[in-house]
Amino acid sequence: MNVLLVHAHPEPKSFTAALRDKAVQTLEKQGHEVQVSDLYAMNWNPVASADDFSSRDTPDYLVYALEQRQAVKNGGLAGDIQQELDKLLWADLLILNFPIYWFSVPAILKGWIDRVLVSGICYGGKRFYDQGGLAGKKVLVSITLGGREHMFGEDAIHGPLEDMLRPLLRGTLAYVGMDVMPPFVAWHVPYISQEARESFLEDYAMRLQQLNQDRPLSFPRLTQFDEYLYPLKKLEA
Amino acid sequence: MNVLLVHAHPEPKSFTAALRDKAVQTLEKQGHEVQVSDLYAMNWNPVASADDFSSRDTPDYLVYALEQRQAVKNGGLAGDIQQELDKLLWADLLILNFPIYWFSVPAILKGWIDRVLVSGICYGGKRFYDQGGLAGKKVLVSITLGGREHMFGEDAIHGPLEDMLRPLLRGTLAYVGMDVMPPFVAWHVPYISQEARESFLEDYAMRLQQLNQDRPLSFPRLTQFDEYLYPLKKLEA
Repeated sequence: MNVLLVHAHPEPKSFTAALRDKAVQTLEKQGHEVQVSDLYAMNWNPVASADDFSSRDTPDYLVYALEQRQAVKNGGLAGDIQQELDKLLWADLLILNFPIYWFSVPAILKGWIDRVLVSGICYGGKRFYDQGGLAGKKVLVSITLGGREHMFGEDAIHGPLEDMLRPLLRGTLAYVGMDVMPPFVAWHVPYISQEARESFLEDYAMRLQQLNQDRPLSFPRLTQFDEYLYPLKKLEA
Repeated sequence: MNVLLVHAHPEPKSFTAALRDKAVQTLEKQGHEVQVSDLYAMNWNPVASADDFSSRDTPDYLVYALEQRQAVKNGGLAGDIQQELDKLLWADLLILNFPIYWFSVPAILKGWIDRVLVSGICYGGKRFYDQGGLAGKKVLVSITLGGREHMFGEDAIHGPLEDMLRPLLRGTLAYVGMDVMPPFVAWHVPYISQEARESFLEDYAMRLQQLNQDRPLSFPRLTQFDEYLYPLKKLEA
């Protein structure tokens, strides 16, 4: 497998970085090829703007997704975006490795999503969910957070973690067609012992070794909806 | 009321900018004082990093939230953060005005959230949800999106919009204690007529004039949980 690991943490010695290193080591040992995009180290620009296109379809009024579609056709994407897009298209497995900031991705990673998942390739028209442009690829979200596990779940104070991660897991990764694996979660990271951290690292290596056996999460399929994307009656019964 | 409107759109002539202008005009007409943070115009830096602190508690290992708490105590927050934080603390009403990118905020606005909602003031320890540091303030999320209204809802292809916005509405804005108003949504914006847009602008002005009558969304209260944040049994019955 070709693996792209996108890493986003401001501290190079963080536990999140240890997870990144463990993933690279484990996957390479299995014979996979791994590329790492370390967004902080790359000084990645997260801000979607008119500068992302070398020429413009409508120079005096920016509709970002429409310019993406044009730029994809005429090779006019900014170099930093094209480079990440090439890595993404090369990859069979994408890993997003980051600390939870506000029940979501850090801004620098949100900006990777905003700029790299271009319309015209990753999605567009009726190409989304199971018909998405990145269908056939797998994605694993690998996260660290401060909260404890019992704070998430049906009756828990924050509700289910997957509900909090819905715009990422469903609205982004499943939307572009990828098979979304259940997230790997290291809980309460700033407050736990070295032993507990090492145990998370071992669990993570095990998880990565057995990724083939994981079943992806379930999301809508376009065949459940009509041409205007209204739900088909027969499926409601 | 003091109102802070945080605006995030890369196109100065966008419909999202027209919503911003309509809000300023409507609110000022009612006698409110309004400040606008136009993140693209300000060239806002969305990337949380060690540079956000003039001195460090632990200079060789960055735990971002812990440094925020120290910086709040010793006045060591970066100037751009302190300026936004001052506006936020001054405001009785916060409006976040943006186009939906990937069922979420654009990265530049995520970076405003990551950097400005500092630990030690906005939240920290047991100060979250109804006990959050910004309790007493209201917040309105005002969004534009490409999708149509029928694509959102219980049986719809993307599910309920408020579920997609959960990390923002619940995990961020309710978390810091604000009263979160139901979002104002302008649907299908890139594809609609000038008349339809003007009708959204009128609806928005009306909504803002009657904001007092809006009931905030419901979120967890800390009294529903024990000291370890486990749910209290009596409430499960």
